[in-house]
Amino acid sequence: MEQVVEEEKAIEHQGERVTTFGVSDSNEHELFGVCAVGLDGKTCCGSNDRVRFPLESTSKALTLALALEDVGHDEFFRHIGQEPRGDAFNSAAAIEEGIHGIPSNPMINAGAIATTAMIHGQNGTERFARILDFVRRLADNDSIDYNHTMYEEEDKDLNRGLFYIMRSHGVLQGREEDKLTPYFKQTSIEMNCVDLARIAAVFANYGRDLKSGKQLISERTVQTVLTLMFTTGMYQASGQYALEVGMPSKSGISGCIMAVAPGRMGLATIGPALDDSGNSIAGVRILKKLAQRWQLGVFSRT
Amino acid sequence: MEQVVEEEKAIEHQGERVTTFGVSDSNEHELFGVCAVGLDGKTCCGSNDRVRFPLESTSKALTLALALEDVGHDEFFRHIGQEPRGDAFNSAAAIEEGIHGIPSNPMINAGAIATTAMIHGQNGTERFARILDFVRRLADNDSIDYNHTMYEEEDKDLNRGLFYIMRSHGVLQGREEDKLTPYFKQTSIEMNCVDLARIAAVFANYGRDLKSGKQLISERTVQTVLTLMFTTGMYQASGQYALEVGMPSKSGISGCIMAVAPGRMGLATIGPALDDSGNSIAGVRILKKLAQRWQLGVFSRT
Amino acid sequence: MEQVVEEEKAIEHQGERVTTFGVSDSNEHELFGVCAVGLDGKTCCGSNDRVRFPLESTSKALTLALALEDVGHDEFFRHIGQEPRGDAFNSAAAIEEGIHGIPSNPMINAGAIATTAMIHGQNGTERFARILDFVRRLADNDSIDYNHTMYEEEDKDLNRGLFYIMRSHGVLQGREEDKLTPYFKQTSIEMNCVDLARIAAVFANYGRDLKSGKQLISERTVQTVLTLMFTTGMYQASGQYALEVGMPSKSGISGCIMAVAPGRMGLATIGPALDDSGNSIAGVRILKKLAQRWQLGVFSRT
Amino acid sequence: MEQVVEEEKAIEHQGERVTTFGVSDSNEHELFGVCAVGLDGKTCCGSNDRVRFPLESTSKALTLALALEDVGHDEFFRHIGQEPRGDAFNSAAAIEEGIHGIPSNPMINAGAIATTAMIHGQNGTERFARILDFVRRLADNDSIDYNHTMYEEEDKDLNRGLFYIMRSHGVLQGREEDKLTPYFKQTSIEMNCVDLARIAAVFANYGRDLKSGKQLISERTVQTVLTLMFTTGMYQASGQYALEVGMPSKSGISGCIMAVAPGRMGLATIGPALDDSGNSIAGVRILKKLAQRWQLGVFSRT
Repeated sequence: MEQVVEEEKAIEHQGERVTTFGVSDSNEHELFGVCAVGLDGKTCCGSNDRVRFPLESTSKALTLALALEDVGHDEFFRHIGQEPRGDAFNSAAAIEEGIHGIPSNPMINAGAIATTAMIHGQNGTERFARILDFVRRLADNDSIDYNHTMYEEEDKDLNRGLFYIMRSHGVLQGREEDKLTPYFKQTSIEMNCVDLARIAAVFANYGRDLKSGKQLISERTVQTVLTLMFTTGMYQASGQYALEVGMPSKSGISGCIMAVAPGRMGLATIGPALDDSGNSIAGVRILKKLAQRWQLGVFSRT
Repeated sequence: MEQVVEEEKAIEHQGERVTTFGVSDSNEHELFGVCAVGLDGKTCCGSNDRVRFPLESTSKALTLALALEDVGHDEFFRHIGQEPRGDAFNSAAAIEEGIHGIPSNPMINAGAIATTAMIHGQNGTERFARILDFVRRLADNDSIDYNHTMYEEEDKDLNRGLFYIMRSHGVLQGREEDKLTPYFKQTSIEMNCVDLARIAAVFANYGRDLKSGKQLISERTVQTVLTLMFTTGMYQASGQYALEVGMPSKSGISGCIMAVAPGRMGLATIGPALDDSGNSIAGVRILKKLAQRWQLGVFSRT
Repeated sequence: MEQVVEEEKAIEHQGERVTTFGVSDSNEHELFGVCAVGLDGKTCCGSNDRVRFPLESTSKALTLALALEDVGHDEFFRHIGQEPRGDAFNSAAAIEEGIHGIPSNPMINAGAIATTAMIHGQNGTERFARILDFVRRLADNDSIDYNHTMYEEEDKDLNRGLFYIMRSHGVLQGREEDKLTPYFKQTSIEMNCVDLARIAAVFANYGRDLKSGKQLISERTVQTVLTLMFTTGMYQASGQYALEVGMPSKSGISGCIMAVAPGRMGLATIGPALDDSGNSIAGVRILKKLAQRWQLGVFSRT
Repeated sequence: MEQVVEEEKAIEHQGERVTTFGVSDSNEHELFGVCAVGLDGKTCCGSNDRVRFPLESTSKALTLALALEDVGHDEFFRHIGQEPRGDAFNSAAAIEEGIHGIPSNPMINAGAIATTAMIHGQNGTERFARILDFVRRLADNDSIDYNHTMYEEEDKDLNRGLFYIMRSHGVLQGREEDKLTPYFKQTSIEMNCVDLARIAAVFANYGRDLKSGKQLISERTVQTVLTLMFTTGMYQASGQYALEVGMPSKSGISGCIMAVAPGRMGLATIGPALDDSGNSIAGVRILKKLAQRWQLGVFSRT
C-alpha cells in the first residue's frame, strides 16, 4: 500500500483543481489520506490519515441505511425511486421526470433530502441526534460531531428549493427545521479516514459490529445500500467507476470516498482535487489500483 | 355577439371539468362572461360580465410590462429568456435547461417570479403597491384589490421552491417577503371581465390611455409583451391557439383569458371549465368564433 | 435602403464564420444580397441580388403551404404538431417527446420530412415536380431548378434516420425514393434574392398573385404558414428574432432569409456568415434595421 | 426448485399480458421454462426446458463480450458510453444526449447496434458468422441457428433509423448490409433454456469453458459484461431488479432472461408474459425466489 500511496501523493499535488472544500487541515501537502479496515478490525493507513473532512454526499449512504431501518423497504420506496438515471446530483428535473413526482433515487440531493425526512424523530433536533448517534456507533467513535461553522455558512438555497418543490408534490411533509435542517447537519458531519473506513468495514461485514458481531444494520438494508452505491454512488461517473474500480462506493465533494469490498474490507480516501464529475481524482486512482492489486471488485474472481 | 355567447353558455354548463378556482360568484350558472372594449372605450359585454375572478397567470403579462418599463429590455433579458419552449408552467427543469440557468421565458412561473423580483420597490410592500397601482391605472378602476383570503390560503410551496432554486443560481437576490410575496399577491388580484378587457384595450391601443391618449406603457414594451403572449401565453397549447385564434392572449387557471387585437380592441373572457392545457374551454371557443367573425387574428387580412 | 446595405456589407466581410454553403457565386466579396418586393410588384434590391443559393430550410415554409393545400389542415395536424418547443432543427428526440410520436412542428427537419411526404403525387418524381412547379409559380420564374450536384453530394444520413424512425412510429408510410427523395431535392432548389422576395410578397399579399390577383395559396394556409414562421421559423433563436425583428421569417443554412410583412411587402436576404443558431448574421441585422425604419414588425403601430 | 417452478407456472397462466413473441412452441400451457447450470456442468431444469425462443435483447450481452474481445476496452468505449441512464431501449434521444453523440450504453438498441458494428468481419456475412460461432461455442451446441422467417419478417425501421442517425454522427461507418444486418440476425438466434443457462454458466465461471477450463472470454471482458448487465440489463427496471433479485441479468422481449451468479451458476428462464418494463413476469419472480433461497445476489452473504 505504501508505494501506491506515494505515487498518488505525487500526482495529487499536481492536480489542476485542488480545492479544499471544508477540509480543516491547513497544510495542503498533507491533504491526501487513505485507510483500509479489515473485518477483524485490522487497520492499514497511508499518508495523512488524520486529516478531518465533512462527509458531504457520502452521508447519503448512511442516512439511507438508517431510514430503511426506520420505515422499512416498502414504505421507503413508495416515496423515492431506485433507478440509476444519470441525473446531476442537484437536479430539480429529476423530481419531475420521476413516476408520481418522486426523486429518481436516494443518491441525488432531492432523494437524499426525502430520505432524511423519513428518519424517525419528533423534530429536527431529535432526528439529527439519531443520525449522529448512528454514525458514531458505526464508526465506533463517540467524539464525531458536525462542523457548526460549516453548517451555519453553507449556501442552503438549492436544497431548500428542492425541499419545497417536493413538499408541493407531497413527496414529504413538515417544516423546514424538522425535515430539512437535519440534512444540512448530516452533510457537515466531520471525521477522518480511519473513521470512514471503519464505517465501510461494517457494511463489508454485512452490518455486524467488527468487535461484538452485533447486527448494527440488517443484512437486507446493507444489500440495498451497497446496490445503490454501486449503481449511483459516484454521481454521473457511476457507470465508469463501476467498470474501472468495481466496488460499491460513495463520494462527497469534500474529496472523500467510502468504498466497500463485501466480506473483505472497508476503505476510505480523502483527496480534495476533484474531476469533472465531482469525484476525488487521487481517491478514484488509488482505489482502482488497490482493487486491481487485491481483487476487490464485485465481479473479480477471488 | 349575443348569439355566440348563448351558444357558449350552453356548452360551458356541460364542461366535464368545471372548477371554480377562486371565482367568487357562487352561482355556477352565471360564471361565464365575455367583454370587448374598443379603442374608443366602447364596451360590449355578454353574459355575466360582473363575476369577479383572480388574475392568476394572466397577471404575468402585466408585471412583464411593468418590469420592462422599470429596468429596460437589455437588463431584463439578461436574467430571463425569450424563447417559447413548451415547458409546463410549473417546470423547475425549465430553469436548468436554460442558458446560464435562467428561466426560458417570462410566461412560465419561474420566469414570472424573476420578473416580479425585478420590479422597482424598496421592499415587498412597496413592490406590490406599485404593481397594484399599475393595474388600477390600466383598468381605470381604483377599487381593484387582491383577494386577501385567497392569498393567505394559497399553497405556496412550488413557487417558493422555484424562488430558492433561482436564488441559488443567482438569477435573483433578496428575501422571500421582498421578492416572492408580491408575486403571490399579484396572482390574487381580482377584477371582472370589463376591467380585464379595458386593460387589453390599452395594449391594443399600443399603450395609450383610451381617454387621455397618454402613453401608459411604451410602444416597445407593448410589442414585447404582445409577442411573448402570442408565442407562449397559453401554456403548452400556445402554438395551437396561435393557429386557431391568432390573437396575443394570456390565460389564468381561474378560467380567465385576456386577448388583444392590436389597433382594434381588447377582449376578456371568464369560464372556469379548463381543458388539459389549463385554458378555459368556453373562453377559447368564444375567442375563436369572434376572431373569425371579426377578422381579429394577427395574420388575418383586414 | 442603400445606406443600410453598405453598412451591412462592411460588417459581413468581417464575419467570423463566413461559410459559403452551396452558394454558387465564387466571389466572396459579392455574396451579400437583399431584396424587397411590394404588393404592386415594385422591386428594390441592394448589393448582389443575383447571387444564387439553395433554399435549404427556407423551403420548409413553401412545402408546408403546398401540403396544407393538398391534404387540408385537419389531416395535416393529425401527423405533425404545431407547438414551438425550441428543438434543434435536427432533433430526433423531438419525435419521441411529441404526443403520439409526432414531430413537434413542421419547421424542424423531422416535421418538414413528414410534411413533404404528405404532398400529393404518385411517386417521388411526381411529388417533387409538383413542389418545383409550385415554387416556380410563386416566384413567377419558370427557370428555377434544383442544384443536381448539391443534391447528389449531400450527406443524407441524418434525415434518412429521422425518416425511418418516423416510419416505425407510423407518422409516415412509403418508400424512401417516393417520400424522402423529394425532401432532399426541395432543399437544393436554387434561386436568387429577387425570386425569394417575390415569393415572400405573395405571402404578404395573403396568397394572391401580384399581377393577376389570382389566389395561389388560400388565405387560411397563408395565416398558418406565417404563424409557424413567426413562432418557429428561425431555429432556436425564433423567440429572440420575433422580439427584435418581428416579421414572420424562415432561414436556411445557406444564409438566406425570407421575411414577410403582411399587407406591406416581401423581403429576402442572403449572407453566408451564420450565427450560433444557424441564421445569417448580416441578414438578421439588415432585416432588424429595415423593420425598425419601415415599421414592419407584426406588432408595430402602423 | 420443483416447487418454485410449479407455483410460477400457475401464476404465469393467469398473466394478463401473455404474448408469444417469436416463441416457436405452440402449446401455450408449456411455455414456461427454467434451467440452472452449475460450474461443474450439472444441469437442473424445471417445466418445459425445451421450448425454443429467439434471444432478442439478451443477445446484446453476448455481442458485447465478442466486441470487447475483438477491439479492446479502450477502442470500444470511445464509441459507446458506460452509464446507466434509464433510457428506453428504443430511445433515439439517448444518442443525442450522450457525450459526442455516442449512445449512453451498450444495452439500449442504439448502443447494441454500434457494438455489433465493431465486431470483426470483412462484411455482414462474415460478421454474423463469427457471432453465431461465438454463441455456439459458449452454449456448446453447434446446432444453434437464427430463425430465418423471424429475421425476414421483423419490422426493421426503428433500428435502421438509429443506424443512420449514428452514422451521421460518425459513431459508426459502413453499409447497412455489413453493419446492421448482423444485428437483426443476432436477435433472431434461437435456443432453449438449457443452452442459455450454459452460456450464463460460462460467465459465472469467469469466462472459462465448463469442461475444458479453456478461457473462452477474458476475465476482464466478463467483469465488464456482468457490470453492465447489473446496472442496465433489465431495461428501465434495472435498478429495481438489482435490489430485488441482485444478479447481473439480461432480458429479451421474447420473455427470456439470462442471469449469472458469479462463481456459483448460470440461470435462464423463459415466460412470455411481460411486465410494463418488457421483462418476463414469471422469469423475474422465479429468479427472485431462487436468489433468496440460494443466496445468489451479488451482495448476499455467502
